[in-house]
Amino acid sequence: MHILVTNDDGVQAPGLLALAQAMRKIGEVTVFAPDRNWSASGHVKTLERPIRVTETMLADGTTAFMSDGAPSDCVALPLLGFVDKVDLVVSGINPFSNIGHDVTYSGTVTAAMEAVIAGVPGVAFSVASQDKPANIPTDYGPAGEMAKLVIEKVIKGDMLEGVVLNVNIPYLSVETMKGILVTRQGLRVYRDALDRRGDPRGRPYYWIGGEAPTGVDEEGTDVGALLAGYVSVTPLQLDLTNYKALDVLKGWEWE
Amino acid sequence: MHILVTNDDGVQAPGLLALAQAMRKIGEVTVFAPDRNWSASGHVKTLERPIRVTETMLADGTTAFMSDGAPSDCVALPLLGFVDKVDLVVSGINPFSNIGHDVTYSGTVTAAMEAVIAGVPGVAFSVASQDKPANIPTDYGPAGEMAKLVIEKVIKGDMLEGVVLNVNIPYLSVETMKGILVTRQGLRVYRDALDRRGDPRGRPYYWIGGEAPTGVDEEGTDVGALLAGYVSVTPLQLDLTNYKALDVLKGWEWE
Repeated sequence: MHILVTNDDGVQAPGLLALAQAMRKIGEVTVFAPDRNWSASGHVKTLERPIRVTETMLADGTTAFMSDGAPSDCVALPLLGFVDKVDLVVSGINPFSNIGHDVTYSGTVTAAMEAVIAGVPGVAFSVASQDKPANIPTDYGPAGEMAKLVIEKVIKGDMLEGVVLNVNIPYLSVETMKGILVTRQGLRVYRDALDRRGDPRGRPYYWIGGEAPTGVDEEGTDVGALLAGYVSVTPLQLDLTNYKALDVLKGWEWE
Repeated sequence: MHILVTNDDGVQAPGLLALAQAMRKIGEVTVFAPDRNWSASGHVKTLERPIRVTETMLADGTTAFMSDGAPSDCVALPLLGFVDKVDLVVSGINPFSNIGHDVTYSGTVTAAMEAVIAGVPGVAFSVASQDKPANIPTDYGPAGEMAKLVIEKVIKGDMLEGVVLNVNIPYLSVETMKGILVTRQGLRVYRDALDRRGDPRGRPYYWIGGEAPTGVDEEGTDVGALLAGYVSVTPLQLDLTNYKALDVLKGWEWE
């Protein structure tokens, strides 16, 4: 089992190290990650310029590859032959949750999507503090342990073809986590606000401000599971077709 | 009816002008677009730095706003209050098709998604040459006419809540287009290949190369409709949950 470990926070992020260490207990690991932070970069593939790849070292002394490409490139290059056959791609551990609509913004999730588009199973991992979602975790140990547990189940259960797994882990000790729940994507409540300011020369500029997004605390969803202290495992698909709307639209007069 | 027109190719792209001109026949139009090309940028929202907005002029002499933010910012800022109430957001016209898995990469589609997340209907438009998909169109007139037709139907039929419409128009004259088909998202066949080269100093660098992606020509899909000369209208959703896999995963032993 050859596992590719990547992220969107950059090769030196502590979440990546924790994930790599957890995966080494399961199989052979190659780390291939961006040389800088690409958070909220969405699904980017670099076609307009060449990409550099450098060998570097993680904080635990193990070897890793870093590239000046985007997270998707860090999946595409290894799968296109930069390394030998990859059986599984894991991405993370992201220091914030990726729940609800976040998944359409998330570089962590899109790295896993890139794998699935190429026909290789992809799993995205994020960890989030329940009470203070803006706080960046400092200890990724428990999240790493849960990531190992999830991947063991995934290997045992046979990965589902074309399915991206989006895993969100509460920022708790392993003992205080309630368990693992399979969930659907919930609803985010964004509370962005426009913040207009004047620069020292009187010209306006704008911040997208407002409070941090919350979520609709509903049972069965990623939002609800995380708030209740469970690890949330959400299967995502790449077919975005809204089949209900498809039937409605087919009933319209188009001529 | 106040229509916001945006794109991911930058404010001076000819496809934006054609779309703005087509929408002016339907309602009041505000153009708010990035100051440069953000193609394949995915879903980015700028939270780490402030955004500048400048008034500029399109090639037909009409006023437009341009910002140094990403396509999603060019939707977020107007909807957060930079302009008065927006009833509809249209994005495009993209000079390449956005079909199959393209939608997860497409800045054109994610601009429409950003609108829908904010509760405003969003429609993405792309135009593509059938025989030479890599050729950039020079005449956006027919695509603009079809965009107008689609938006008229959308207004008449009541926009569906939470639905992003992804419209792909063949690069043909209006007379030779076969009509409009409501479709589901099809399958792309990517043919990327790793291209390893050495720089003048002997150090390696990599291109993501290979041939242009093709699509699986299947009836009922965006790929099939476009190849057959139809305008393709695909309803997309923001819930990416794979409900079939959800049931399978719930059957696994997670403890």
